[in-house]
Amino acid sequence: MKRKLLVIGIGAGNPDYVTMQAVEAMNRADVFFIPDKGEEKEELARVRRELCERYIRDRNYRDVGFDVPKRRAPGEDGYGASVADWHERVEAVYRRLLTDEMSEGECGAFLVWGDPALYDSTMRILDRLNAHDDIEIDYEVIPGISAVQALTARHRVVLNTIGRSVLVSNGRSTFEGDGDADTVVVMLNADKALRTADDDAQVYWGAYLGMPDEVLVSGRLGDVREEIERIREEARRAKGWIMDSVLIRKPPTGD
Amino acid sequence: MKRKLLVIGIGAGNPDYVTMQAVEAMNRADVFFIPDKGEEKEELARVRRELCERYIRDRNYRDVGFDVPKRRAPGEDGYGASVADWHERVEAVYRRLLTDEMSEGECGAFLVWGDPALYDSTMRILDRLNAHDDIEIDYEVIPGISAVQALTARHRVVLNTIGRSVLVSNGRSTFEGDGDADTVVVMLNADKALRTADDDAQVYWGAYLGMPDEVLVSGRLGDVREEIERIREEARRAKGWIMDSVLIRKPPTGD
Repeated sequence: MKRKLLVIGIGAGNPDYVTMQAVEAMNRADVFFIPDKGEEKEELARVRRELCERYIRDRNYRDVGFDVPKRRAPGEDGYGASVADWHERVEAVYRRLLTDEMSEGECGAFLVWGDPALYDSTMRILDRLNAHDDIEIDYEVIPGISAVQALTARHRVVLNTIGRSVLVSNGRSTFEGDGDADTVVVMLNADKALRTADDDAQVYWGAYLGMPDEVLVSGRLGDVREEIERIREEARRAKGWIMDSVLIRKPPTGD
Repeated sequence: MKRKLLVIGIGAGNPDYVTMQAVEAMNRADVFFIPDKGEEKEELARVRRELCERYIRDRNYRDVGFDVPKRRAPGEDGYGASVADWHERVEAVYRRLLTDEMSEGECGAFLVWGDPALYDSTMRILDRLNAHDDIEIDYEVIPGISAVQALTARHRVVLNTIGRSVLVSNGRSTFEGDGDADTVVVMLNADKALRTADDDAQVYWGAYLGMPDEVLVSGRLGDVREEIERIREEARRAKGWIMDSVLIRKPPTGD
């Protein structure tokens, strides 16, 4: 079985973040695979379908919704094992999509939120499928504006300080022993990082970046922590889900 | 003096990396400030002018070339001092551009290579100018596809490994004591990182990303180091300048 696929970064929410390359790619696809089960996924699926309507011209295409398996909480076997188990189940879903919902000669597409190279599993799953003898996937990757970039642009803040490094994190680890990095960007699970970082750190926080519900707060962490936690909790309750990122700049150490 | 400015990320070289938002912003500007002195700047200026020609519709605009002061090599006073001195001279150039080359009521634009938040000084210089009482700059930032994203998309590689952090570096520091990060992306000065990293690291290297001269090499560092150094040196000599980035993945430690 041979399949041609496009892994298209659509940017972080704002339809204007879409690149010319993404539009061109969308206009080559016959079928779009769109995760659409659950409150959060439903809203994000709506954005993806609107992008197709807005940018695809004079071309027939179809979309196929699918349910992304839920990842179980890490058990005694650890975080890695829960991810490996989850990938196996997502791989089975992708295999079904590529087998039942498209044929050789067609071009399929995944519209990835943000950038496909940053905390997204689409490429990993396609590589897993490609490792099997019975399937051959030829895929292209189109980069997209990530939440990090939406966050810094909206706050008008440079990610790095002069000559220093930046740590990009999924928020699972704490911000310790990071060499010369004085800045961390937490892409997911911003709450934990906000609870544990230094009160004197400068933070730039944003939720639902690029979307109509976008919220931004910045300031000295000790001064804005409660405000962020309150807004975060209210928004999460009102919408049923939250997607936020935060840039944390360590206070200067005087070195 | 009041000025309206747009700091527009144009992505890493490929004109198709430009976003819809960048195109819309370009169509609001009256004057584009374009650094164009020196071999490298000349080629990059050509790309910027071609973007204007390609994407600006039914609108009069002008461009103003300028010479970016060179940064002196760090002396006894260190890297920070050489950057501070350089920023002061760039600030004087910007002040002249905003005073002599545009008037209140007009909209000016800087077309920033890659993303304005990543190892670029435009926002810093505008903030410096804004700190003076005699000038008031209102600026917007439009994110762009960075070299990191061009690199990962072209190599079809995910930036992070599962659950781990990523260090984004300017290549001045070595890759030591980086907490849970097992990946480093070096945005500039890739050569030093390539010389010093572990032979068993997996590397994904690219030069002139997104441009017609793009070169990509990947593999185990011990196997590809010489090839990269040879290609890098030949290209640098032929073109007169080099712009490259590398993703380095530390060998697994078995933890």
